[in-house]
Amino acid sequence: MLYSLKIALGQMDVIPGRPDLNAGTMLDMMARARQKKVQMIIFPEMAIPGYLLGDTWEQRAFLRDCQEYGRQIVESSGDLCVLFGNVGLDWNKTGDDGRVRKYNSFFVAQNGRLLGEDNFPYPFRIKTLHPNYREFDDTRHFYSLRKLSMDLGKSVGDLLQPVNLNVDGKALKLGCILCEDGWSDDYNLEPAKIINKNGPVDLFVNISSSPFTLGKNNKRNRVFSRQVRDSGIPLIYVNNVGIQNNGKTIYTFDGYSTVYNGKGEIVHYCEPFQQDLKILYLNQTGGLNNAKPVEVPDDSGIASIYQALIYGISKFVSFADIKRVVVGISGGIDSAVSACLYTRVLGSENVLLVNMPSIYNSRTTKDLAARLAGNLGCLYTVMPIQDSVDHTVDQITNNAVTNLKDGQQLKLTASSFVLENIQARDRSARLLAALAAAFGGGFTCNANKSEMTVGYSTLYGDLAGFLAALADLWKHQVYALAGFLNEQVYGHEVIPRDVINLVPSAELSFEQSVDKGKGDPVIYPYHDYLFRAFMEHWDRATPEEILDWYCRGVLEDKLGCRPGLVKKLFSCPAEFISDLERWWKLYTGMAVAKRIQAPPVLAVSRRAYGFDHREAQNGAYFTARYHLLKRRLLEPGSVG
Amino acid sequence: MLYSLKIALGQMDVIPGRPDLNAGTMLDMMARARQKKVQMIIFPEMAIPGYLLGDTWEQRAFLRDCQEYGRQIVESSGDLCVLFGNVGLDWNKTGDDGRVRKYNSFFVAQNGRLLGEDNFPYPFRIKTLHPNYREFDDTRHFYSLRKLSMDLGKSVGDLLQPVNLNVDGKALKLGCILCEDGWSDDYNLEPAKIINKNGPVDLFVNISSSPFTLGKNNKRNRVFSRQVRDSGIPLIYVNNVGIQNNGKTIYTFDGYSTVYNGKGEIVHYCEPFQQDLKILYLNQTGGLNNAKPVEVPDDSGIASIYQALIYGISKFVSFADIKRVVVGISGGIDSAVSACLYTRVLGSENVLLVNMPSIYNSRTTKDLAARLAGNLGCLYTVMPIQDSVDHTVDQITNNAVTNLKDGQQLKLTASSFVLENIQARDRSARLLAALAAAFGGGFTCNANKSEMTVGYSTLYGDLAGFLAALADLWKHQVYALAGFLNEQVYGHEVIPRDVINLVPSAELSFEQSVDKGKGDPVIYPYHDYLFRAFMEHWDRATPEEILDWYCRGVLEDKLGCRPGLVKKLFSCPAEFISDLERWWKLYTGMAVAKRIQAPPVLAVSRRAYGFDHREAQNGAYFTARYHLLKRRLLEPGSVG
Repeated sequence: MLYSLKIALGQMDVIPGRPDLNAGTMLDMMARARQKKVQMIIFPEMAIPGYLLGDTWEQRAFLRDCQEYGRQIVESSGDLCVLFGNVGLDWNKTGDDGRVRKYNSFFVAQNGRLLGEDNFPYPFRIKTLHPNYREFDDTRHFYSLRKLSMDLGKSVGDLLQPVNLNVDGKALKLGCILCEDGWSDDYNLEPAKIINKNGPVDLFVNISSSPFTLGKNNKRNRVFSRQVRDSGIPLIYVNNVGIQNNGKTIYTFDGYSTVYNGKGEIVHYCEPFQQDLKILYLNQTGGLNNAKPVEVPDDSGIASIYQALIYGISKFVSFADIKRVVVGISGGIDSAVSACLYTRVLGSENVLLVNMPSIYNSRTTKDLAARLAGNLGCLYTVMPIQDSVDHTVDQITNNAVTNLKDGQQLKLTASSFVLENIQARDRSARLLAALAAAFGGGFTCNANKSEMTVGYSTLYGDLAGFLAALADLWKHQVYALAGFLNEQVYGHEVIPRDVINLVPSAELSFEQSVDKGKGDPVIYPYHDYLFRAFMEHWDRATPEEILDWYCRGVLEDKLGCRPGLVKKLFSCPAEFISDLERWWKLYTGMAVAKRIQAPPVLAVSRRAYGFDHREAQNGAYFTARYHLLKRRLLEPGSVG
Repeated sequence: MLYSLKIALGQMDVIPGRPDLNAGTMLDMMARARQKKVQMIIFPEMAIPGYLLGDTWEQRAFLRDCQEYGRQIVESSGDLCVLFGNVGLDWNKTGDDGRVRKYNSFFVAQNGRLLGEDNFPYPFRIKTLHPNYREFDDTRHFYSLRKLSMDLGKSVGDLLQPVNLNVDGKALKLGCILCEDGWSDDYNLEPAKIINKNGPVDLFVNISSSPFTLGKNNKRNRVFSRQVRDSGIPLIYVNNVGIQNNGKTIYTFDGYSTVYNGKGEIVHYCEPFQQDLKILYLNQTGGLNNAKPVEVPDDSGIASIYQALIYGISKFVSFADIKRVVVGISGGIDSAVSACLYTRVLGSENVLLVNMPSIYNSRTTKDLAARLAGNLGCLYTVMPIQDSVDHTVDQITNNAVTNLKDGQQLKLTASSFVLENIQARDRSARLLAALAAAFGGGFTCNANKSEMTVGYSTLYGDLAGFLAALADLWKHQVYALAGFLNEQVYGHEVIPRDVINLVPSAELSFEQSVDKGKGDPVIYPYHDYLFRAFMEHWDRATPEEILDWYCRGVLEDKLGCRPGLVKKLFSCPAEFISDLERWWKLYTGMAVAKRIQAPPVLAVSRRAYGFDHREAQNGAYFTARYHLLKRRLLEPGSVG
C-alpha cells in the first residue's frame, strides 16, 4: 500500500530504574507530538524501565510499576500511534529461574489499547535474539521468542508476524524489531526476514537500547543499510541517550536514531548524545519530503571519544550529585587530561587540583603541574606527602611486634617496593579522599587502560576514586586526547607541551627520575598493542598466538603496532619471551585482583573492564603449545 | 538387565583454568582405580577446564588445550569406562556470539574412544538446561541442547538419548545428566525423564560443578531422592571440591558426591570439602553390598558455615600465595572472629594482630583486643593513629587553596563525618596496607554482610583488604560463629565473653562510646532481617512489600525476626517509615558504589554480593504503590 506518515522519533534520555520519570518524559513528548499532528511516535527499547538494571528485574514491585506506567502510556495514546519498549509480563508463567516470566517487549498502542494480539499470544511483540556477550545479560532476565515457540510447540516463523496498523484509514503492516533482532548475522535465524515473509511489511521499526562503542554507529549504518537494500523496505531506528551501568562499567548511549529509505540510504539521523524529539514526514519509500541522503559523521575517532567522555562524566556526576571534584595532578599526562575533562564539565571553580610531591618528585613535574593548573584557572594547592610517608615508615619499622607465644620482639623492615606503594596510598586514600570530603565532592581516578591491564597502579592509591574516566583508553589514546584538547577544544596549549613530551613516570623512587629520562616499565608504543590483543581482540590472543606470530614474523602486523619495533625492543627471543610472560602473568594475576577493587570504568572501546570483560581470579596459564613454541625458540641453534 | 559394577567416584579438587593440572589429577585417579579393578570412574562437570572462568572461554588457545587434555584422558581409558565433564567443541560452527561453538559436555570414554555417537550428532552429551541465575553464566558461553535441537529441526526429545555402554560383556544404558539438567523443576522440560523414556535407563549419573550454599546439600538430597523414587533408577551424583570465583565472589565447592539407590535412599556420600577417590560396588538396584541407607549431616547450620569459611580461606590464601596476614583488631566481634579464622588456617606465628587506637577508642576495647591476641598467641602490636590523623586534618585545613582565576585564598574545614572516615582510611590504607607489605602478606577485610548491605563502612578504610571472608554473614551469624569458635572449635573462651556482650560500635567519635552503651546505627536484631529480605528473598522485597507487611501486622513473621520487636523499636509509623527509607536509600545508593570497590566476598549464603547479586548504580526507587501506602499510613487519623 501507499502511505505517507508524519512520525516522531522519541530519542529520549532513559533514566535506568525510574519508570516514573521515563513515563513522564514520554507523556511530555507525546503531547508535543500531538500538537504537531504527528501520527506515529517511536520510543526506544525498554523506554520505561531502562535496560541495565542488574537484578532489580527480580523485584516484583518494580515490575508492577513498569506495567502500570506502560498502561498509562497506552491509555494516553488517543489517535497517536505510540511505539515503545517495556518489559512484557506474564504473571501466570515463570522464566527459567522460576520467577515471573519477563519478556523484552515492543508495544504498539493506539486509541487507548494495545495492537497485535490478532496474530500473537500477547498484546506485545517479544525479542527473539538475546545478546549475552560483552555487557549484555538479556538471557538472565528475559524469556526469548525462541523459548516461547518451543513452549507453544510452534516454529519461530509462526510467531514472527507483522503488527497490523491502521493510520488515518490506511492499513499498514509494521515490522517490529527489538535491537539485537536486527543484528542477526551470528545467529541461526533472521527475524526481520521472517517477519517480512509473513508480511510483506510496509515499514520496519527497530527500537534499541544500544550503548556507545567507538565506531559502532559506522558499523550499524553499514549493517542496516545492507539489510534495507536487500529487503527494499524502509527502516526507522530509534535508540535512547543517557547513561546506564552494570556497576563496574558505565555506558553512554549515543542515540543516533536513524531513518533509512527503501534504498538503504540514510535520509535522517538525530544528533548523538542529545535528547531529541524529531518530527519527520515519511513517504512510502521511506524518503523524506525533498530530502537527499545525508552523510553521517565517522564515530571512530578521537572526537567521538572526547564527546562520549564529556557526556558520560557529566551525566555520572549529575546522577551521583557530585558538583565538585579533587584531581591529584602529578605533572603527567593522565592527570592533566583528567583535569581538563572535569574542568570542562564542572567549571574551573568546582575543580580543586592538588599536587602532592614526595622527595622523588622532580622540579620539572612540579612546575608542569602548576602551569597546567594556571592554564585551567582552577583551585590549586600543593600538599607534600613526605612527612606523612616518613611517619608511616617510622611507625611500621620502629614499633616492636611481640610474639605473644614466647614474648620475643621483632621489627619489620620496609623495602623500596613497600615505600613506593606507601606513597601512592598516602596521596589517594589519605589526602585526596580527605580533601574531597572537606571540599564537598569526590576525587577522580586517572588510571588508563594500559595500567589497568597489568595492574601498574596501587590499590587504594592511584587506583582509587569515584570514577575511572580514562580507564578504557590506551595510553596512546590519552596522548591523542591531550592533543585534541589543546588543538580542537581549547584552541591553545592548555596542557603544556612538556607534559606531552615527558617520559611517562610514576616518580615513586629515584629509579624513576624523569630528568634522567627514566620512567614506567610499560613501553606504550608496543605494550598498548600487545595488551589490546589480550583484551580487545574478538578471539582473545594469548601468549601462544603472540609467540606464534613472533616466530612467523607477523607480530607487528597482527598487533597493529609500528613495524620494526619488536626487533628494536628485544635483542633476542629470550628477552621477548621474558617480557611477554611478565605482562601475561600480571594481566591474568595481580591485575585481576586490583580490578576487582577498582572504581567504575567509563566505557568507550569495544571491550571495557568490568562487567563487559568478565574475569576470574585464577592466575596465569600457558598452553601446552606455548611451552612447545618456547622450547623450540630457546633451543640452542634455533632461529629467533 | 542385571548388573553389578565396581565404580569410583572421582570427587576431585578442580583447579579452574588449569586443564594441565586437572588432567593430571584425573590420570592419577584413573591409575589408582585401575589397580583396584574398578570398571567405571566418574569425574565432575567441567573437570578439565574448571567451571567459573569468566571470559577465558573466549581464548581459542585455551579451548584447544582443554580438547587436547580431554583426548589424553580418552586415550588412557583402556578397559576402564571414564565419565567426565569437559567443554565440547565444534570448530565448524559458531555460538550466538559468533565465536567457536562450545557445549558444556559429558564425555564417556572406553578403550581409547568416545561412546555415544551412535544416537547423537556428537561423541559427547550436551547440557540441556543452562542456569543463568545467581552466579551462573552458562548461557553466555555454551550452546544448549535446546538451541541445537532447533538448529537440527528436531525435538529436544529426539536428542536426549541414553549412552549405550558395554561393561564386561554386559550392555548398560546410561542416563548422562549434567548438573542443572537434574534440577528441572523451574523449566519447561525434564531431561532425565525424557532420557528414561528413550531408554529405559539402567543408571543415572549426574556430574556437577555445584558451589556450596548453606543448606543446598539438604535440598539436593530431597530433590534427587524424590526423582529417584519416581523413576526407580539409581543415581550417582559426582561434584567437585575446591574453590572457584567470578572475580568479586568466591565459591567453595563441597563435593558431597552421593549415591542414591533405586528407592531414593542415600547409600553413600563422600565427605564434603575433601578430594576423595571413593570405590564402591554397586548392584543392579543401586545398592551397595551389605550397605544400609546412611544419614547425611544437616548442612544448614553454623558448623557448615565454619567449615566452608575455613576451607575457602585456606584454599584462597594458598592460591594467592599468601602465607602471612595482618588483621586489624578493634576489640569488636567481627575482627575477633576474623582473627580466629585466619589463625586456624595459617597458624598463630603467621598472623599479625594490630590494634590501632585513636582518642575515641576506649580502654575497654583496647584491653579486649589485647586479651584476644593473648588468647590466640599471635604476633601483636599496638599502633596509634592519632598523630597521623591530626597531621591529615592539619594539612587539609591549614594549607591554603588558591583560586588561580582571581588569586583568592580559601581554607577547607573538616566536619566530624570527614574526621570519622579519615580515621578508618588511616587504619587500613595507610597502616594495615604498609604493615602487610612489610610483613610479607595481605591484610584482611572484616566487614560483615549487614555493613556491606548499607555501606556502613569506609571505602579504602575498613572496606579494604585482600578478601572479605565474613561479608556473606549477617551480624547475628558472626555472633553465632563466635560462640561456635569458643564452644566447639577451641573448647574454651578464646574470644572474650565481653567482646560478645559489647555493644557493636565503630568508635570513630565520642558519640559512639561503648562505655556509654552507644554504638552502630544498625539495630542488628531487626535490620539483619530487613536487609535479608531486600537481598536474599527469592522475590526481592522492596519498601512496598515491607510497608504492606507492616500495615497488615505480619512484618516480623515475613522477615523472620523476633515478634514484638518492631513495635518496641518504632513508636509510630512515621518513625518506621523514616528508618525504612534511610536504609533502602543506602542499600540501593551509596552502598552500591562502595560494593563496586569492595574486596572479593567469600560466599556462603543463597545470595552473596558480587557476581551473584548483579547490581547497577542507579539510586533508590520507591514504587507508586509504596507512596500510596505511605500517604495512607501518615494521614491524620490513620491507624498505624
